[in-house]
Amino acid sequence: MSGSLVVVGTGPGKPELMTPATQAALAAATDLVGYGPYLDRVPVLRADQCRHASDNRVELDRARHALALAASGRQVAVVSGGDPGVFAMAAAIFEAVESGDPVWRTLDIRVEPGVTAMLAAAAEVGAPLGGDFCAISLSDNLKSWATIERRLKAAAEADFVIALYNPASKARSHQLGEAFALLRTVKASDTPVLFVRAAGSADSKVVATLLADADASVADMRTLVIVGASTTRQVGRWIYTPRGAKS
Amino acid sequence: MSGSLVVVGTGPGKPELMTPATQAALAAATDLVGYGPYLDRVPVLRADQCRHASDNRVELDRARHALALAASGRQVAVVSGGDPGVFAMAAAIFEAVESGDPVWRTLDIRVEPGVTAMLAAAAEVGAPLGGDFCAISLSDNLKSWATIERRLKAAAEADFVIALYNPASKARSHQLGEAFALLRTVKASDTPVLFVRAAGSADSKVVATLLADADASVADMRTLVIVGASTTRQVGRWIYTPRGAKS
Repeated sequence: MSGSLVVVGTGPGKPELMTPATQAALAAATDLVGYGPYLDRVPVLRADQCRHASDNRVELDRARHALALAASGRQVAVVSGGDPGVFAMAAAIFEAVESGDPVWRTLDIRVEPGVTAMLAAAAEVGAPLGGDFCAISLSDNLKSWATIERRLKAAAEADFVIALYNPASKARSHQLGEAFALLRTVKASDTPVLFVRAAGSADSKVVATLLADADASVADMRTLVIVGASTTRQVGRWIYTPRGAKS
Repeated sequence: MSGSLVVVGTGPGKPELMTPATQAALAAATDLVGYGPYLDRVPVLRADQCRHASDNRVELDRARHALALAASGRQVAVVSGGDPGVFAMAAAIFEAVESGDPVWRTLDIRVEPGVTAMLAAAAEVGAPLGGDFCAISLSDNLKSWATIERRLKAAAEADFVIALYNPASKARSHQLGEAFALLRTVKASDTPVLFVRAAGSADSKVVATLLADADASVADMRTLVIVGASTTRQVGRWIYTPRGAKS
């Protein structure tokens, strides 16, 4: 039997947010490859399934390991959180294919979509992504801070709702504060800002504030930050962005 | 028993992409409210469940109807395609709450996240949303075309991957061509463009081309269009955007 590789996302955390297609892909795999905490979200599905847990910082090594396993004939599932195509393992797999063994290009590789963190975070508070929006990762491990600043500024000037992934980690603490400072030069001080920690999991927590008061230290590596557009507002206990406003 | 309202998304089409949480919310509802084709994706879950199908063009009326049902004590599920918070019914519900009966602000309202079309479309071709990206609806029913153009230009200049929702409908055919013309003034002519029709359904179809050759007439109301960033590229039969590139 020839090998295969499927890249899946567990969704934001709760088992009820993992799609049946992803559950089926996990059940069919002989080998699971992923960051330990994401693998821990996957129940034991079959006794003969091997788990290859790794550190979060070595995505390309993990991708190569998964591809080598598939090339050796194993049925491999690479496990991300959220959706595997959004700041997660799917892009790392194709980067590894591009720079790796030419045989890898002939492998049966597919991606299963999932519920990404910003959708779960938005659902917890209402509908803040109800208008045009963008998603920016604040991690400058793989791109320059100048590129991130350029995108933040463009998104603010064009009045997008902005979802910020990877706002902070143990190794990175200053980026979110700098991002807020930059956004304050363009967006109004009363723009809603939402910190949603562990969105879509049993222990989710929301902090809703305004851009003028947003404190970057509220965020950690499990937090998704949403900065509203000019039309984003509160109604009752919900925050939402209208679908449009003629202007 | 007091009423409640949950806004759900069926996911992109295949039942295997609807989350278990959404399935449970649908099974608990006494009333389903939604656009007919989305309601048709929901199997009959209980004999006493009422279905209120409506036309796609009357979202705010549908929202008010759903809220009135909940206020009368019914357990209402409002059914969108994809994720209900992305160019779908969740924002319409909160718009209706804001302008409607003050009692509606006291209702038990929640949103269940789902797999939105761009994630399913991306998964079909590889990982084109692997870097920073934005989502823009080309419908100018509720916002001005000038606003849309401003956002397209900003997104292109800051080198985002761009997902275009609602690229065309029976009533709107010129917007996508105008969007491509605008994007060609900023993005390189060899930028990958993906037309994914009925993403995440059994009859999905992908057309991969380049910005120079992109033909707007390929898209209809079931198509999601992805326009790459400068780094988006092909490897084997897949299209992907690297997670970053130091520049």
